[in-house]
Amino acid sequence: MATVDRWLLPDGIEEVLPPEAARIEAARRQVLDLFQRWGYEFVVTPHLEYLESLLTGAGQDLDLRTFKVIDPQSGRLMGFRADITPQVARLDAHTLRREGPSRLCYAGSVLHVQPRALSTSRSPIQLGAELYGDASPASDVEVISLMLDMLDMARVPDVHMDLGHVGIYRGLARAADLSGQAEQELFDALQRKAVDEVAALTDHLQPGMASMLRALAELSGGREVLELAQACLVEAPGDVHRALDDLIAIADELEVRYPELPLYFDLGELRGYHYHSGVVFAAFVPGVGQSIAQGGRYDGIGADFGRARPATGFSTDLKSLVSLGRMQLDEPLTGIWAPDSRDVYLWQAVRRLRREGQRVVQALPGQASGAAGEAGCDSQLVWRDGQWAVAPLAL
Amino acid sequence: MATVDRWLLPDGIEEVLPPEAARIEAARRQVLDLFQRWGYEFVVTPHLEYLESLLTGAGQDLDLRTFKVIDPQSGRLMGFRADITPQVARLDAHTLRREGPSRLCYAGSVLHVQPRALSTSRSPIQLGAELYGDASPASDVEVISLMLDMLDMARVPDVHMDLGHVGIYRGLARAADLSGQAEQELFDALQRKAVDEVAALTDHLQPGMASMLRALAELSGGREVLELAQACLVEAPGDVHRALDDLIAIADELEVRYPELPLYFDLGELRGYHYHSGVVFAAFVPGVGQSIAQGGRYDGIGADFGRARPATGFSTDLKSLVSLGRMQLDEPLTGIWAPDSRDVYLWQAVRRLRREGQRVVQALPGQASGAAGEAGCDSQLVWRDGQWAVAPLAL
Repeated sequence: MATVDRWLLPDGIEEVLPPEAARIEAARRQVLDLFQRWGYEFVVTPHLEYLESLLTGAGQDLDLRTFKVIDPQSGRLMGFRADITPQVARLDAHTLRREGPSRLCYAGSVLHVQPRALSTSRSPIQLGAELYGDASPASDVEVISLMLDMLDMARVPDVHMDLGHVGIYRGLARAADLSGQAEQELFDALQRKAVDEVAALTDHLQPGMASMLRALAELSGGREVLELAQACLVEAPGDVHRALDDLIAIADELEVRYPELPLYFDLGELRGYHYHSGVVFAAFVPGVGQSIAQGGRYDGIGADFGRARPATGFSTDLKSLVSLGRMQLDEPLTGIWAPDSRDVYLWQAVRRLRREGQRVVQALPGQASGAAGEAGCDSQLVWRDGQWAVAPLAL
Repeated sequence: MATVDRWLLPDGIEEVLPPEAARIEAARRQVLDLFQRWGYEFVVTPHLEYLESLLTGAGQDLDLRTFKVIDPQSGRLMGFRADITPQVARLDAHTLRREGPSRLCYAGSVLHVQPRALSTSRSPIQLGAELYGDASPASDVEVISLMLDMLDMARVPDVHMDLGHVGIYRGLARAADLSGQAEQELFDALQRKAVDEVAALTDHLQPGMASMLRALAELSGGREVLELAQACLVEAPGDVHRALDDLIAIADELEVRYPELPLYFDLGELRGYHYHSGVVFAAFVPGVGQSIAQGGRYDGIGADFGRARPATGFSTDLKSLVSLGRMQLDEPLTGIWAPDSRDVYLWQAVRRLRREGQRVVQALPGQASGAAGEAGCDSQLVWRDGQWAVAPLAL
């Protein structure tokens, strides 16, 4: 490789320079502090795990996005995390093993073999919060509210929310006795809202069932969709009605809490890595195709680790959150310039100022005080009346 | 794999649970804030890069510790970072391209194929600070002082420092005209202080040169070693004397700044990944074989990226720093318990309290107020006189 190529980064892999890196760090702290104020406890999951642990319950989609290596110590296949949510579910189910509800949050880089969409990163910084141990819509409302408060704190403008519930499609598919293969094909067609394909794939079913499945492709829009769904799905089995009732309860509560928030519903939407089992939700901003934050209920993952726990949560990419939001993150940079001197009294003065929280940058040999401005300093240490004192930077 | 094995983590790969994860996060913030007060700017480097970028100038040692994968997009080999220092050097030399000195700092996970020593982690959290663009001992003194202040802030007890300078051995080996292979063998023998091997390997050399190289194996101990070295190496070439003078200048300044700090010198020590070119230093605590923080000067790496820049810096593992230090990291956990109620006035009260910085945990359906204590709450919201008010937690 030529020298000129050595420093190129792979496509979709980014570094973050000053001052943007400081903004990212400030946003990270503000979001984690928000999670903490809601009672969510911070955890750190590993970047690398045995592949089977990483992918358990998570579906093929995640498998295809995961970089793999052999562990030379054990001879087993390991993967670099492409999603932190299943790791935290494992940690809740196996390591923590609490009886009551558990609120956990995390922040860290993930790596994707392929970007999720054109021009998106292969190395997002995933931040999220998860609530385990309660199956009621109250938990879904809590995590959606936390997600909305995070977007509000990040000053993301013009947010709208999409809501769906995978239990509606799953319940119908089960009642229609669709095989795994047939369910997947119909799922794909519904996701693409390919109405003709949906019609063809449901052609052999009992007419009432076929019309309910076909209706899902069209059941998207405002609040009226939920009433329409209750009418269309009146003959659906009980679990479909329970799913719809949960979705209505969640929508009702969100309307009370966030009366200004535009809410959209899409009953054919089954977002995510196929691990969701209940309500699914995503926040969007105008002009951006990808959601800025998303999540849902996934009650099944814990069971794969030997302990069934209801679970709901959301995640976001910190870099997108900072770039799409208008957070006030830039603290005005101030600092005190110290001359290049080995005087021990200067060292003591510098040390004292730093301990008091001041930013002090010391000149290196040959640096004139003209470099002070470049270093973000607006005052300087000068020797005056027998001591080192802070004075304005001479212009 | 049996269900029971699914959750096992690979050897040397850790997760961090509450409340330890919160302690790690608090320490991370304190250390980064300290670096900021010294004028060091935060940068974020990628977890994954083309292998050639990652390893340029870094030596075989790092190569052997780096996990590798093929990038399916480019077909090129990539590596997961095992050390952040060479990445920051690339960033300084190529991306930032500043003329004057540059102070950068970073924090992030690294992954090692093999642990550096028995029972050490394969996934440390590396924190460090680097100073580019100044070749004088003043820069080395600055980064060593910052490292010592970090250890002081982390309340690591009984720290002692080891100092060496790879320019002394390198200058002698060059003067002795040792081939790459012979230099490496002698280097290995010196590192192990294998005096007999050093004698054998230098047997064919001109006697004055042989005795100087043999002396290096014995030149370790307190400050007297530096005077002894000046006597032993009197016939050494000029660059060896300049290296020794730099080391003495650094030691003099550290003695002024930290009169209580035990300083040891070892002129046969060539710590690191073979990329160091000048002073090398490490901080130790009694009873722990591995250094708790370490660094040195490495003026060569930037040149490999097309731009020679003097460089010096240090790094530490955050998890070791927290476990060996006695930092005050546990904030007393307080919080306000909110009952399970969908009253919109309760929601507004909870929201207002959280915006004021209070921690508020809301009960989930079926949770009695007995769960408030487990959730770290010491007060509760009660409906009183027509409003939600904070009251002591009923016992």
